[in-house]
Amino acid sequence: MPTNITAVLDQIDTDLPESLERLKDLLRIPSISTDPAHAGDVDQAADWLVRELAGLGLAARKDATPGHPMVVAKGGDGDGPHLLFYAHYDVQPVDPLELWDRPPFDPEVQETPKGKVIRARGASDDKGQMMTFIEACRAWLKVHGSLPVRLTFCLEGEEECGSPSLVPYLEANRDALKADLALICDTGLFDPETPAITTMLRGLLGEEIIIHGPDKDLHSGMFGGAAINPARVLARILADLHDDQGRVMVPGFYDGVPELPDALRAQWEGLGFDADGFLGAVGLSKPAGEAGRTALEMLWSRPTCEINGMTSGYSGAGFKTVLPAQASAKVSFRLVGTQDPHKLREAFRAFVRERLPEDCRVEFIEHGASPASVMETGHPAFEAARAALSQEWPKPAAFVGAGGSIPIAGYFKSILGMDSMLIGFAKDDDQIHSPNEKYDLDSFHRGIRSWARILDAVAKV
Amino acid sequence: MPTNITAVLDQIDTDLPESLERLKDLLRIPSISTDPAHAGDVDQAADWLVRELAGLGLAARKDATPGHPMVVAKGGDGDGPHLLFYAHYDVQPVDPLELWDRPPFDPEVQETPKGKVIRARGASDDKGQMMTFIEACRAWLKVHGSLPVRLTFCLEGEEECGSPSLVPYLEANRDALKADLALICDTGLFDPETPAITTMLRGLLGEEIIIHGPDKDLHSGMFGGAAINPARVLARILADLHDDQGRVMVPGFYDGVPELPDALRAQWEGLGFDADGFLGAVGLSKPAGEAGRTALEMLWSRPTCEINGMTSGYSGAGFKTVLPAQASAKVSFRLVGTQDPHKLREAFRAFVRERLPEDCRVEFIEHGASPASVMETGHPAFEAARAALSQEWPKPAAFVGAGGSIPIAGYFKSILGMDSMLIGFAKDDDQIHSPNEKYDLDSFHRGIRSWARILDAVAKV
Repeated sequence: MPTNITAVLDQIDTDLPESLERLKDLLRIPSISTDPAHAGDVDQAADWLVRELAGLGLAARKDATPGHPMVVAKGGDGDGPHLLFYAHYDVQPVDPLELWDRPPFDPEVQETPKGKVIRARGASDDKGQMMTFIEACRAWLKVHGSLPVRLTFCLEGEEECGSPSLVPYLEANRDALKADLALICDTGLFDPETPAITTMLRGLLGEEIIIHGPDKDLHSGMFGGAAINPARVLARILADLHDDQGRVMVPGFYDGVPELPDALRAQWEGLGFDADGFLGAVGLSKPAGEAGRTALEMLWSRPTCEINGMTSGYSGAGFKTVLPAQASAKVSFRLVGTQDPHKLREAFRAFVRERLPEDCRVEFIEHGASPASVMETGHPAFEAARAALSQEWPKPAAFVGAGGSIPIAGYFKSILGMDSMLIGFAKDDDQIHSPNEKYDLDSFHRGIRSWARILDAVAKV
Repeated sequence: MPTNITAVLDQIDTDLPESLERLKDLLRIPSISTDPAHAGDVDQAADWLVRELAGLGLAARKDATPGHPMVVAKGGDGDGPHLLFYAHYDVQPVDPLELWDRPPFDPEVQETPKGKVIRARGASDDKGQMMTFIEACRAWLKVHGSLPVRLTFCLEGEEECGSPSLVPYLEANRDALKADLALICDTGLFDPETPAITTMLRGLLGEEIIIHGPDKDLHSGMFGGAAINPARVLARILADLHDDQGRVMVPGFYDGVPELPDALRAQWEGLGFDADGFLGAVGLSKPAGEAGRTALEMLWSRPTCEINGMTSGYSGAGFKTVLPAQASAKVSFRLVGTQDPHKLREAFRAFVRERLPEDCRVEFIEHGASPASVMETGHPAFEAARAALSQEWPKPAAFVGAGGSIPIAGYFKSILGMDSMLIGFAKDDDQIHSPNEKYDLDSFHRGIRSWARILDAVAKV
């Protein structure tokens, strides 16, 4: 079937006011998933989506879970790959309400110095983003009568409350949800002119260590000198974690850490990342990671070891000459490539134990272990989507990394065995999770057009 | 004047029951200095002492201070040195009262498996100890009609509430209080058979450091790798404070740290200190200080650097992937010899600043600085007192150190320009500051005899 993408884009432009009204309808439903008082609203949002998707001729349904429902829809019969689209229709709470300039569930298009925005809770995270895809499908169907790909929708209602039902649901519906590739619309642009496909998400390994020394806090005058001080032992262990080049010293830590492919390095260099601005915004000036790495590498493609918390002895006002009985730290590792969190947990524990003097013992508490998600960008859909995005936006799209974790991409890989293209149009100033959340009309409009182009391009691979 | 010490000792033995009754009288006065409700009781105890001392023919008076009164008395015309005797007549609170086996201010002599004890608040700390000296004077006067030395008493009523009036009082009464040597009765035996004269008290330097990095807590996924982590910077600084031999690495730290004189080393070795028992009591087994030093050196004659507290980032339950904006530690140094706390504070701060990366700044908070007190044991009274004590107790007396500080000895040195002999008969199990405080009748009886012998010996130097 030959497609005419221009006609679809024209249709999107023409229908933008109606698309916006539909988004505003959805934004009026206060689907705050974490608040039991809003359970009915979450359910209502699910019903709204089922109606919308059914109205597009898709087989749509609301699947009950122990928590909020999952909206699932299927349609399309194009020759292209089978795609699974994921977004979420629940939103964050709105407290503190007094910091909002207008009611959070009474959406309004506002003029701002940077252009028009849609202001409401969920406008960006994630209802506005979700609707870019649905509106792209609508325009496509209106122009062509059918979709160019097979498509499954999986819209979650629990993303903002920890996704308690997601993994069991995916495991129970493997066959129904399995596709060639997932599309996840919950990320942002690299900058207002540069779209991005997130292809690398760092994993996370969390460990808490508690060093025990004397069996009670001691007086540092009576015992200081002769009794071991667990705070000193802990400081030594934590200091040993990095060498003076910023490399992590746990044996085997860099097993499975790949060098950045040249093509990706070139793309990242082309992004012109403003490291000074990024660090300057939080009062810093100098990238503090491994020597010889760029700031973007430090953030996206290099593993880290961070102390997230540390506590020992007396920390109140004034002074107490106590020799503490214990000292503890919370330490986390951001993982990349194929670093194995379980192996690293053992290696870290051995590293700590090796440094333990005779009179100390250590207690470990584990706090999660998830490997990095690295997409197989060799699948031609990735380059096709990148080209499509590059046509829509002022600057070429890039495959980027993300320092944090987006668990859904990992679940799609581990449970459904497929890679994800994480594409979204949010901006850094969207104030998600904060008062006065907004989504740029430009994000919404170009977002719809982007998806239309991506569907067109991916259908042809 | 030839003295007959045997007659004095016999008198002490004969009068012991009456001495004990007088101590019980004093113990019945609940002179809790920290509790304003007991201010009248503290005053009553002062009056009681003035009456007792006047009854011995001394010129005794109660000096008002902004807090509780000071009891001062003068007497004696012997040829020996002029001695200032210090003790305190106030006591600790008694909470939790329900843990006492009997009313804390209803003293009773009890039989225990280890011998007879006097049970009451203040029995050991410090009324029982104070009365050993007063009873020794009483016996001496009874036998000889006069004291062999010139003697000034300075009995404090605020020791257990921080001695707020002490320094101004000493400064205002320099001439009245100045003597050749001070006797302080507020310490303990080395072990139940071995008396001790404390001649070395460690000083204390307290510092708090706060390392500031980013201007707010950051998300360790978004910023981890590129942003400096102050907890890591602090851990490195704290780890650098010691080398792998346990030596403190602050430049100049060991300036003024003397090697132990051979004679003192021999005395300490003769004490047969049970390091295993000392450490075993708090769940430890191995002296953790400088390599090549004995446990007693680590505790008494070597300086230390200890981390007393440490805090950064998230320390609650569970995990938070925060990259902390700051990290802080409370660090203290126990000082010996002529180490200068003010120079060391500056050296420590320079040490920290040198290790500060570009994007961090440090804030310092000072928490006190007092040098070590090292008595001039060359004064012949020290050896005389040691010999006298050795005659009274099963094992020879030793000059010992104390890991903590006893401020009064420092004040006597700095304000009145005299050394102190710290001699006391308390035992480790006296439960001072705790419920069921006691003083062994053996401590009381031999304590009185010890002072009689010391007065005799010191008068002859």
